[in-house]
Amino acid sequence: MTDGAALKPPRIGISPGDPGGIGPEVIVRALSKTKIPPARYILFGPRSLWEDEAKAAGLKVDLIPWKADGGLPEAGVFFHDLSGPQVPTGKGVDDSARGAASFSWFESTVASARRSELEAVVTGPVSKHAWSLAGLPWRGHTEYLERFYPGAVMSFWSDRLTVALLSHHLSLREALGRVNPEALAGFFRVVYESAVGKTEGETEILVAGLNPHAGEEGLLGTEERDVIGPAIEEARRAGLPVRGPFPPDVVFRLAFGHPEKIVAAMYHDQGLIPFKLTAFESGVNVTLGLPFVRTSPDHGTAFDIAGKTPADPGSMAAALRLAVRLAGCR
Amino acid sequence: MTDGAALKPPRIGISPGDPGGIGPEVIVRALSKTKIPPARYILFGPRSLWEDEAKAAGLKVDLIPWKADGGLPEAGVFFHDLSGPQVPTGKGVDDSARGAASFSWFESTVASARRSELEAVVTGPVSKHAWSLAGLPWRGHTEYLERFYPGAVMSFWSDRLTVALLSHHLSLREALGRVNPEALAGFFRVVYESAVGKTEGETEILVAGLNPHAGEEGLLGTEERDVIGPAIEEARRAGLPVRGPFPPDVVFRLAFGHPEKIVAAMYHDQGLIPFKLTAFESGVNVTLGLPFVRTSPDHGTAFDIAGKTPADPGSMAAALRLAVRLAGCR
Repeated sequence: MTDGAALKPPRIGISPGDPGGIGPEVIVRALSKTKIPPARYILFGPRSLWEDEAKAAGLKVDLIPWKADGGLPEAGVFFHDLSGPQVPTGKGVDDSARGAASFSWFESTVASARRSELEAVVTGPVSKHAWSLAGLPWRGHTEYLERFYPGAVMSFWSDRLTVALLSHHLSLREALGRVNPEALAGFFRVVYESAVGKTEGETEILVAGLNPHAGEEGLLGTEERDVIGPAIEEARRAGLPVRGPFPPDVVFRLAFGHPEKIVAAMYHDQGLIPFKLTAFESGVNVTLGLPFVRTSPDHGTAFDIAGKTPADPGSMAAALRLAVRLAGCR
Repeated sequence: MTDGAALKPPRIGISPGDPGGIGPEVIVRALSKTKIPPARYILFGPRSLWEDEAKAAGLKVDLIPWKADGGLPEAGVFFHDLSGPQVPTGKGVDDSARGAASFSWFESTVASARRSELEAVVTGPVSKHAWSLAGLPWRGHTEYLERFYPGAVMSFWSDRLTVALLSHHLSLREALGRVNPEALAGFFRVVYESAVGKTEGETEILVAGLNPHAGEEGLLGTEERDVIGPAIEEARRAGLPVRGPFPPDVVFRLAFGHPEKIVAAMYHDQGLIPFKLTAFESGVNVTLGLPFVRTSPDHGTAFDIAGKTPADPGSMAAALRLAVRLAGCR
């Protein structure tokens, strides 16, 4: 990406997610019915999928074909027509064909971003079960991205709280093993470098302890004294604004209402219990540590309501807005 | 205790906590300035301590001497004058003398409850550090009570959320070892028997998993499948309304706003992160599994403001109200 490109509206590639879920619907609704900032939004996937979805939602979306080699400097909604697996129609079905299709659209979107044709990727929700039925080895988007970018970090952003996870889909017992100097050093660096200048207010990292009361000077665990504390000192010596370790049941209160104070959580539920309790409707999942931005709404395919009840595009709109904000500062 | 005694206002023994902290002050303020239900509130500790505290707060508290052998059927505020360590005066000091004094007053209050002279004990906050300086082997109130009642359970109650902890002051690594069939069976039984009929609405126990996504059928940990799930089944066969295991980042959202749905948390921070984030001001710490009720406010000694800034009696008032409610149903 040249410096000149930053002056144009950012290019936000959007993958539909599972065609049997609410992903395509909330994308179409978010683009046509909610307040989103100017950008070049590019819908990946078969044209017919987007047209059918807009029709079902009673919305008119003008789709302009996208050319990756430029020539489209203006903000708007474009589409990148993908061939590949035939589009399965019908909602609420969790099957192999839909799993294969949603993966291939996501794969194409990521490939485009990897070719620097996009500044950000926003993903509709996929079905982990359908991916598994389709024989795919990845649990979801993040695991696929980790294949290319092993230092990627899963994080969650809302207006009130931002959390980054040292590890995510591991048993709690395995997650304890990730609390080591090398992993912490990379984690702090990725979180800081991905977020600095993009939070409202001065970016800071507040580190949660692993044990009750942050170990209480070794009485309730030694990781804070022997591993986490020294890793924080090391990061501070390198100039990173990292503080802690704080008692886990205190740090989220300190950070609450200050989304610029990113809580570095030592395991999946330490970060996600407070995040989901306080920010479910507006939550956005952000993968940090990639050469492009990647966001997604904090909800699943909702097969139970897909095609029956109109789906709320709020979280998808938040994912689009955050993608533009994070991409705009690149 | 005879059945007849239940018709009289419950006897709530109150220990002052650390005399250098805000405990005595919030007790005096809560008893004289907040809305609390009729009960026989009995202040343990030296009379001079209570008189000085009321004077410092500019409050008039009429203290009636308490006779443990009865003869005081009416609601009111009484005192049980304790000799023992001399009362250290002066606020904001964290020392051995104050630690020894706060312990001896608490010990006397518990001894009275153990003689069935009280239906409930409410404790002002003590300093763990001062107890340690005084050579006491217990971290705090709960650990002392566990000496007599090894099956005691630490729980936290607010208007919006109730959580009970399978273990509390253990490192996270050690806490994993507590997730075993015997501990879970006792935990579910104690929580249910202590709470049934005392929550507003039908008491139910929602069990959190230990691992992300409650282990996801063994992919992210096996404790749910091998230990927690079977323990829940066993409890249900015994007639207990126990459900789960739920994904940890989901169960608190299910229970939020329903304090009658008690979340059974598998370790300290799993329960306390969401509790402290959402209920700090009104939170009450309740020890379950004792032959009497024990509550305390969810704050510490606040040495930094003690004697300088008027302390908020809200959490102490909530602790007194909850003690009366829990005791009244005994």
